[in-house]
Amino acid sequence: MFESAQIGHSIDKDTYEAEVPALREALLEAQYELKQQARFPVIVLINGIEGAGKGETVKLLNEWMDPRLIEVRTFDQQTDEELARPPAWRYWRALPPKGRMGVFFGNWYSQMLEGRVHGQFKDAVLDQAIAGAERLEQMLCEEGALIIKFWFHLSKKQMKARLKALRDDPLHNWRISPLDWQQSQTYDRFVRFGERVLRRTSRDYAPWHVVEGVDPYYRSLAVGRILLESLQAALANTPPRHQGNVAPLGRSIDQKSLLGALDMTLSLDKKDYAEQLVTEQARLAGLLRDKRMRRHALVAVFEGNDAAGKGGAIRRVAAALDPRQYRIVPIAAPTEEERAQPYLWRFWRHIPARGKFTIFDRSWYGRVLVERVEGFCSPADWMRAYGEINDFEEQLSNAGVVVVKFWLAIDQQTQLERFEEREQIPFKRYKITEEDWRNRDKWDVYAEAVGDMVDRTSTEIAPWTLVEANDKRWARVKVLRTINQALEAAFAKHKK
Amino acid sequence: MFESAQIGHSIDKDTYEAEVPALREALLEAQYELKQQARFPVIVLINGIEGAGKGETVKLLNEWMDPRLIEVRTFDQQTDEELARPPAWRYWRALPPKGRMGVFFGNWYSQMLEGRVHGQFKDAVLDQAIAGAERLEQMLCEEGALIIKFWFHLSKKQMKARLKALRDDPLHNWRISPLDWQQSQTYDRFVRFGERVLRRTSRDYAPWHVVEGVDPYYRSLAVGRILLESLQAALANTPPRHQGNVAPLGRSIDQKSLLGALDMTLSLDKKDYAEQLVTEQARLAGLLRDKRMRRHALVAVFEGNDAAGKGGAIRRVAAALDPRQYRIVPIAAPTEEERAQPYLWRFWRHIPARGKFTIFDRSWYGRVLVERVEGFCSPADWMRAYGEINDFEEQLSNAGVVVVKFWLAIDQQTQLERFEEREQIPFKRYKITEEDWRNRDKWDVYAEAVGDMVDRTSTEIAPWTLVEANDKRWARVKVLRTINQALEAAFAKHKK
Repeated sequence: MFESAQIGHSIDKDTYEAEVPALREALLEAQYELKQQARFPVIVLINGIEGAGKGETVKLLNEWMDPRLIEVRTFDQQTDEELARPPAWRYWRALPPKGRMGVFFGNWYSQMLEGRVHGQFKDAVLDQAIAGAERLEQMLCEEGALIIKFWFHLSKKQMKARLKALRDDPLHNWRISPLDWQQSQTYDRFVRFGERVLRRTSRDYAPWHVVEGVDPYYRSLAVGRILLESLQAALANTPPRHQGNVAPLGRSIDQKSLLGALDMTLSLDKKDYAEQLVTEQARLAGLLRDKRMRRHALVAVFEGNDAAGKGGAIRRVAAALDPRQYRIVPIAAPTEEERAQPYLWRFWRHIPARGKFTIFDRSWYGRVLVERVEGFCSPADWMRAYGEINDFEEQLSNAGVVVVKFWLAIDQQTQLERFEEREQIPFKRYKITEEDWRNRDKWDVYAEAVGDMVDRTSTEIAPWTLVEANDKRWARVKVLRTINQALEAAFAKHKK
Repeated sequence: MFESAQIGHSIDKDTYEAEVPALREALLEAQYELKQQARFPVIVLINGIEGAGKGETVKLLNEWMDPRLIEVRTFDQQTDEELARPPAWRYWRALPPKGRMGVFFGNWYSQMLEGRVHGQFKDAVLDQAIAGAERLEQMLCEEGALIIKFWFHLSKKQMKARLKALRDDPLHNWRISPLDWQQSQTYDRFVRFGERVLRRTSRDYAPWHVVEGVDPYYRSLAVGRILLESLQAALANTPPRHQGNVAPLGRSIDQKSLLGALDMTLSLDKKDYAEQLVTEQARLAGLLRDKRMRRHALVAVFEGNDAAGKGGAIRRVAAALDPRQYRIVPIAAPTEEERAQPYLWRFWRHIPARGKFTIFDRSWYGRVLVERVEGFCSPADWMRAYGEINDFEEQLSNAGVVVVKFWLAIDQQTQLERFEEREQIPFKRYKITEEDWRNRDKWDVYAEAVGDMVDRTSTEIAPWTLVEANDKRWARVKVLRTINQALEAAFAKHKK
């Protein structure tokens, strides 16, 4: 894999100096075109052997190109805000928006390689990390991102010579690499595991580029050209991708459906409701104050038919708690900054820190509900969203976040009655719009979308709870009880 | 000041229950109207005596109103990301956008009171903090925010009874206040300094509301009504405020001006330039690696005539550094999320952490330059901006941020030549727009705005440097040298 990057590639100074001006101009041109189109972001990953010129090359790119459109990010020590959230959060918050370029040093690959090289974990964990990186990159590319991955290489002999030279140079010895790189063992392990990583993560949509780092002229020109060609190809490639064939989802052939199977007559009388509500609210308050909550966070997702009582249920949950303990995030149309990012970005930005509770009033499931039904995204987009959402929730779960998801279901007659009631009561008239009436006409299409959503995203780590919500009292108690059970189940896994 | 909040206000249960439904409806109505108008944010500050019902009242408001439109924030321990920036940064990042309500517990007042009560500082420092709070609130109000400040009060006797009751109540003893509140001394000091704070910060645009906290019915109804009346008044008050008379700025009566006094013939020949540039770049690289940099951050602001060479100067600064050390923030039109916040918010969000360097390519001075000249804001807005900007920069400076500001000046003839050149060269044509040509016609108005800006915002802590930029080489070296001198001056203040 690294063979052709150990053969002493080099370019003479004259050739280099003759080529650079045109390359620079073309890079600038591409960069401004990128900004103009504002159609996709560019993510450049910088990895490889210590001393192979990673820092110098990025510095040079910043000189060649317009540094105002490049964001260079390092990910060394995590801040305490980052430590309190899933590991990927720090990358999500640093993603460049459409039209700009982000250069990531010390990215996900550095982290997994460091861990494996220093024996913090074995191959199985490395392979998990590799698979996670692949899913992340594939998702970013499907969202339009251009990912360019560079591996700067040196043979062991070249590396030793290079580190020695750096050490002896008073102008540069401050940036000498960590001591352990000077041991051959580290090099061998780094290259061995590096090869494993590159082999598995070099994909058509985000291939690795291995660049021999010993000769600055060769290295700089090679990187500049790869960058330029990748940029030009992506800028020319205007048609939206992945609009191709989408395998159809099977339909129920016996007319039975999940929603149809719900017992919509379930209800609670006033007295039972009052008792059970207070009990469950006190239980929730107690659970959130439990010491074990410090190692978890809680995310509750509320979806449901219009007028199914999401707001009311959310208020009964909130009423159990001190307002300092939770945040409610209402999801409406994305803002301009959110539209310049991959779909899941606007949810990642609201992921709670450990110990905290976030309630999403509508959520990332909009992709496979309203966006699917209204055609706001292509079938390919919402089809892949199922997998992306499962990945997302798995990352939350791995970081200790308890994810609870509710679909509040009412029948058509109940909805009609509530719409009419809303139009009568002054302070409720804000809750009803033309659009709500229009959505009613699409009842069956929505029901189908809900069925597919539950089938494809109800998982052991983040199951859906279908809530029979014709009776508001029943629904509210069921929501609270489900949250409590999920928290207790999570706490029960702790060693006493 | 607190007299009428110690007389045992109370309301009977029947009156309370009769009044609440209408109050609730009106609050909801106001809240939705606030969201609909999306014209201003509401900031509710919660302060006062421990045990006076602060938490309970906020909880109740969340039950009465729609909690999805309320963001409750606590500011207890600072995260390390917050500790690395000026103290106000944590408040800026938590500001609610227009149309929403933020409830701030543990806000700036709590912080100053804690510090004074526990003897961490004396009255002089308290008064500084008070003045700072006043300036912040005035600015927020001028930007349209509605600020409602509640002081929950109890007499000493009432407090002691209340804390005892809480302690004995198994359902609530978890939220019992810190021990030191149970000592009379803390109460006395808290009330004494609290009075000083309230006296000085109760202003027409953001008055304090002192509410006796002993009776829950009285307290809840009082707070609910104040909130409702404040909201209704602000919602009805549509005309933009402060459009009144603006005192004219004096004009130079002898035709002399700052910009006119620059020696635009200053230049460097190629050889001197090459030498000096390398020297200053190496000096900057060294300074940013200096240990003393860990206690500072660096902010460089670039403003100037169109085509004055801002981009080129920024690139020469950047070229001195490892791209991981700096960020360049190009300021263009504000995004939707930025427009929903006070003017300075979009700059606060990019303030560097200690040890870091941020370059602003255009800046907060847009308010008193392009926005003034083009009439994008009212004269009152840009007139008050001078003071707001000085406050902002003082806060940066107090937190160890070195602020360097450049105006790159060229003459009209030079600008014309550069415009024409830009239209010739393919990769430079992005740099020139119709607007640039239009701005040229406003040369004199811009010159006047620049003169006023420098007169009013060139301060000892953040002086302007006017850069003679007809000769690019001269300008670039002067920029680098000025940054270096500013850093060295800041470092020199450290004890050896």
